[in-house]
Amino acid sequence: MNIILLSPDDYINDNTVQLVDDRLTHINKVIRAQPGDRLRVGLINGKIGYGIINNVDKTLCSLTVKLDQEPPPATPITLVLALSRPKMMRRIYRMAAEYGLKDIYIINSYKTEKSFWQSPVVEQQSVHKYLLQGLEQSVDTVLPSVTFKKYFKPFIEDELATLAAGKKALVAHPGNHPPCPIAVKQPMILAIGPEGGFIPYEVEKLNQAGFDTVSLGPRILRVENAVSTLVARLFDGAA
Amino acid sequence: MNIILLSPDDYINDNTVQLVDDRLTHINKVIRAQPGDRLRVGLINGKIGYGIINNVDKTLCSLTVKLDQEPPPATPITLVLALSRPKMMRRIYRMAAEYGLKDIYIINSYKTEKSFWQSPVVEQQSVHKYLLQGLEQSVDTVLPSVTFKKYFKPFIEDELATLAAGKKALVAHPGNHPPCPIAVKQPMILAIGPEGGFIPYEVEKLNQAGFDTVSLGPRILRVENAVSTLVARLFDGAA
Repeated sequence: MNIILLSPDDYINDNTVQLVDDRLTHINKVIRAQPGDRLRVGLINGKIGYGIINNVDKTLCSLTVKLDQEPPPATPITLVLALSRPKMMRRIYRMAAEYGLKDIYIINSYKTEKSFWQSPVVEQQSVHKYLLQGLEQSVDTVLPSVTFKKYFKPFIEDELATLAAGKKALVAHPGNHPPCPIAVKQPMILAIGPEGGFIPYEVEKLNQAGFDTVSLGPRILRVENAVSTLVARLFDGAA
Repeated sequence: MNIILLSPDDYINDNTVQLVDDRLTHINKVIRAQPGDRLRVGLINGKIGYGIINNVDKTLCSLTVKLDQEPPPATPITLVLALSRPKMMRRIYRMAAEYGLKDIYIINSYKTEKSFWQSPVVEQQSVHKYLLQGLEQSVDTVLPSVTFKKYFKPFIEDELATLAAGKKALVAHPGNHPPCPIAVKQPMILAIGPEGGFIPYEVEKLNQAGFDTVSLGPRILRVENAVSTLVARLFDGAA
């Protein structure tokens, strides 16, 4: 937790917040903060700044906050990801928020097991928790939007072209395809398959929707590592 | 498991292997293979090819193997990584093997908790297991070498310059540093701190050993995501 994220409910007046829950635990157990200490805080979907601790004990931490900095710029990649195993999805939500992705579409695919659509990783409340963890890591406040599309074909045929308009659209797929480009200077939309990959029909439908197939080389990467590799290559966030 | 890795002990004659353990489980439960099926196999530190199943049951799988392809090229990055939490190290070992890194040095740092040096993630036998998992994912056979250096200063002062000779040497550290370069065309050596980062003294010692400090941008990434981001940016494996 490199930033403590606040919601409007935490405010008791214009510039004072009272924290309980795991943020209080973090302040007591990890930071071991004392009255007068300065902590980095931010308002969810708002600005970043500092909070000075007024008082802190086992039940409550009161902070006077000043928020005056913008959060870091968003990473201009829309992610279209086939639903994978819940364990992997939890990591990918955290990672996507950490990398500054803001628009995420979780779609069905042939190799997505039906049971995954019954798991908590497709419930907004759980997803929200993992996204917050990613923002807390990377010192951002802006929550990504995660949209679930349980039907592959209508999404690809009816909605995807609109989403991809004006963007460089890529689908990563193992095989003999052109290499994934580096440091692209325009908004992107990126489709990534489930464990085991998209089937040829799915790649074809994505190609018809304007997505170019690209390769990440001879190695087969885990889905989560494919996500981080693609984001790291495509977006030159350090420049 | 995208490849079944063999060791010399599995051979009962020049081209027949008998498998038990989790590889047999995988063949039965995940692949659900039958006699006559062709599976991708490789010899640890050797070639890749195919195995044809002679017979398979709950206790044993016998395969006739033919190994005729080279494993994918190594990723020319030596990784010097401060020891972090065991949970994170397990993922990083898998990931490093998956990405084709072959030379890994695990070092002490100020923010490395002493107890980490007592955990199984610094025992070669455990490490071997995680590295194999990474190779099984990415279809490689060549085991990385992992070396532990429990004393920061003598390693940095006496050994690191030799290791870094002829390589582009970089240390990733948050802050106002030049951005991490992209698609470097020479061998590299890359130093990455623990959770919470290197302390200024450690960065300075690395700089003295010829490492340039580079930034990954305004976001603070988890150590494992810093590793994948750096490897993805520095090495253009797809080209």
